Amino acid sequence: MKLLEATLAKIKPVSEELLQSAQAKLDNKTKPLGSLGRLEEFGRRVAAISGSLQPDLSKKVIFTFAGDHGVVEEGVSAFPKEVTPQMVFNFLNGGAGVNVLARHAGAEVRVVDMGVDYDFGGLPGLIDRKVARGTKNLAKGAAMSREEAVAALEAGIGLAVAAKEEGVAMLGTGDMGIGNTTPSSAIIAAFSGIAVRELTHRGTGINDEALEKKITAIENGISVNRPDPADPLDVLAKVGGFEIAGIAGLVLGAAAVGIPVVVDGFISTAGALVASEMHPHVKEYIFAAHKSVEIGHTFMLGRMNAEPILDLKLRLGEGTGAALAMTLIEAGAKVLCEMASFEEAGVSEAEG
Amino acid sequence: MKLLEATLAKIKPVSEELLQSAQAKLDNKTKPLGSLGRLEEFGRRVAAISGSLQPDLSKKVIFTFAGDHGVVEEGVSAFPKEVTPQMVFNFLNGGAGVNVLARHAGAEVRVVDMGVDYDFGGLPGLIDRKVARGTKNLAKGAAMSREEAVAALEAGIGLAVAAKEEGVAMLGTGDMGIGNTTPSSAIIAAFSGIAVRELTHRGTGINDEALEKKITAIENGISVNRPDPADPLDVLAKVGGFEIAGIAGLVLGAAAVGIPVVVDGFISTAGALVASEMHPHVKEYIFAAHKSVEIGHTFMLGRMNAEPILDLKLRLGEGTGAALAMTLIEAGAKVLCEMASFEEAGVSEAEG
Repeated sequence: MKLLEATLAKIKPVSEELLQSAQAKLDNKTKPLGSLGRLEEFGRRVAAISGSLQPDLSKKVIFTFAGDHGVVEEGVSAFPKEVTPQMVFNFLNGGAGVNVLARHAGAEVRVVDMGVDYDFGGLPGLIDRKVARGTKNLAKGAAMSREEAVAALEAGIGLAVAAKEEGVAMLGTGDMGIGNTTPSSAIIAAFSGIAVRELTHRGTGINDEALEKKITAIENGISVNRPDPADPLDVLAKVGGFEIAGIAGLVLGAAAVGIPVVVDGFISTAGALVASEMHPHVKEYIFAAHKSVEIGHTFMLGRMNAEPILDLKLRLGEGTGAALAMTLIEAGAKVLCEMASFEEAGVSEAEG
Repeated sequence: MKLLEATLAKIKPVSEELLQSAQAKLDNKTKPLGSLGRLEEFGRRVAAISGSLQPDLSKKVIFTFAGDHGVVEEGVSAFPKEVTPQMVFNFLNGGAGVNVLARHAGAEVRVVDMGVDYDFGGLPGLIDRKVARGTKNLAKGAAMSREEAVAALEAGIGLAVAAKEEGVAMLGTGDMGIGNTTPSSAIIAAFSGIAVRELTHRGTGINDEALEKKITAIENGISVNRPDPADPLDVLAKVGGFEIAGIAGLVLGAAAVGIPVVVDGFISTAGALVASEMHPHVKEYIFAAHKSVEIGHTFMLGRMNAEPILDLKLRLGEGTGAALAMTLIEAGAKVLCEMASFEEAGVSEAEG
């Protein structure tokens, strides 16, 4: 709990002065004012977060957090639970979607076992932060204890702090956990008060029967646990997941040490929402990678004032959207660093 | 005219069989069906266009076509005409937006003088395809002769054909020409019949007075020239521009030789529209880079059945949007090539 409290105490607003200096630098580049649209926003924000008008984003890491969910026994997913550890092996072998897209973006993928129901036995390359072998069934009681939630958050914080010390300039979040759209939807329901049926979607592609089971499981989870939206830790513990807590911790850590963090899709956004409910300035460090097809995602982004960067109908998770968005954010940073000014290029400025 | 006719005769539909084989390959990758959304569309289309289920897009070229416009004497732009050659020098020195973003995407920028009103005197690095020193004022008569339009189209075709011979796997379009949103809007007005006032926007950022001048210039251009929408060459010659014709030619050439072509924003889309009005299968080779803030862009994309890839509020042109979109299209191709299948990774498939 001490690390969590110390981390929250360290989070400061992003410098308004640096945002303005970066925009002034952009305004002198050889282009009509504002004509690079959101790339200018990316360049400006990265500069202000990292404290440099010449930010270098070449060192990028995506953390893919894995965990299992007791609620799968309610029949909420199209895939069997065994797929969680199977996909961990796939990540470590470099064959999953996030591996391909992270390589393309020049980012490293680090896989973290937060709570997979499988004994990996000290597998090389896997970061072991296992809190337990999966959460308990949230439809019947708390998914985890408050202490477990803190331990998972602090694991995520620790990874962000260590990354900063290594010189990592941009972080990305990713998730793997069969059944994890269920706790994510439950978190949104808890914070928003929106009816579960309205915000519950088909996840990786379940049929009508499984969708009904999922809705019932979340409704039961909310009524049995009564998560308190004014206490984000309570929400996370009662209806969350270990990988979601790891993501929330990484986001808190990124905000505390001053690294931009690219939040992937639906599950990652649930983690980022928990983090941003814990401290009002967290959202200034977040980039929302993409618009998810999941209902409820829009609510979360609105609550964090985050405008998604991409809309490519992705619904895979793992950090795939974060990898793609990283290439665009880095492009914005390069505009700030590399474009010639009007004076350097001998180009006339606009009249009047 | 012979090259243009021969090129049109060569354009074939993209293979439906290859599209299906590529999707079948994607469906066996370790992810829920369809969960990589538009990346799957990109991978599938690139495979079918290039004729390979293992497409390699590492060699990419963006052609930035430059030309001047007689219509600037009507006061339609915020920037003086001298900026067109000044920006050509900036492109050749690597300091412009397109240079920065193309380097980021791993693409080469090639700058083509299609009709700049400046004597570059055999400048190294500049591709000289100058048809004339700028178009005539379209508000008072035809911007160019039919012969000039054909010459400019054939220059673009030739560049695509030569790129294919070199092994270039993906092309991008870009433009530079002070005043060129005016002919682009005129082209849309000619094909759509939409009122000029409705589809005319502020380009690089003109004030109310210049906007009125722009609308009047286009209205005069349409009434004086009476471009025939059933004859795309007539539209291009009467109210187009040399860089727009170069872009149209590049797109036709790309379709004829079978290379995917990424069309940048508003001006490039006007060129692509002329090309796609000339032959019904051209649109199958086109990727629309981004949604422009210019009114009229949506009409053109709809007419070409093209869904823009990005929406980052860009309005610079040059090929900047094409460079960014290329990174996403290449990501889709890599998903097809590099992701592990369920069998390779030992991952269980979805139930039911």
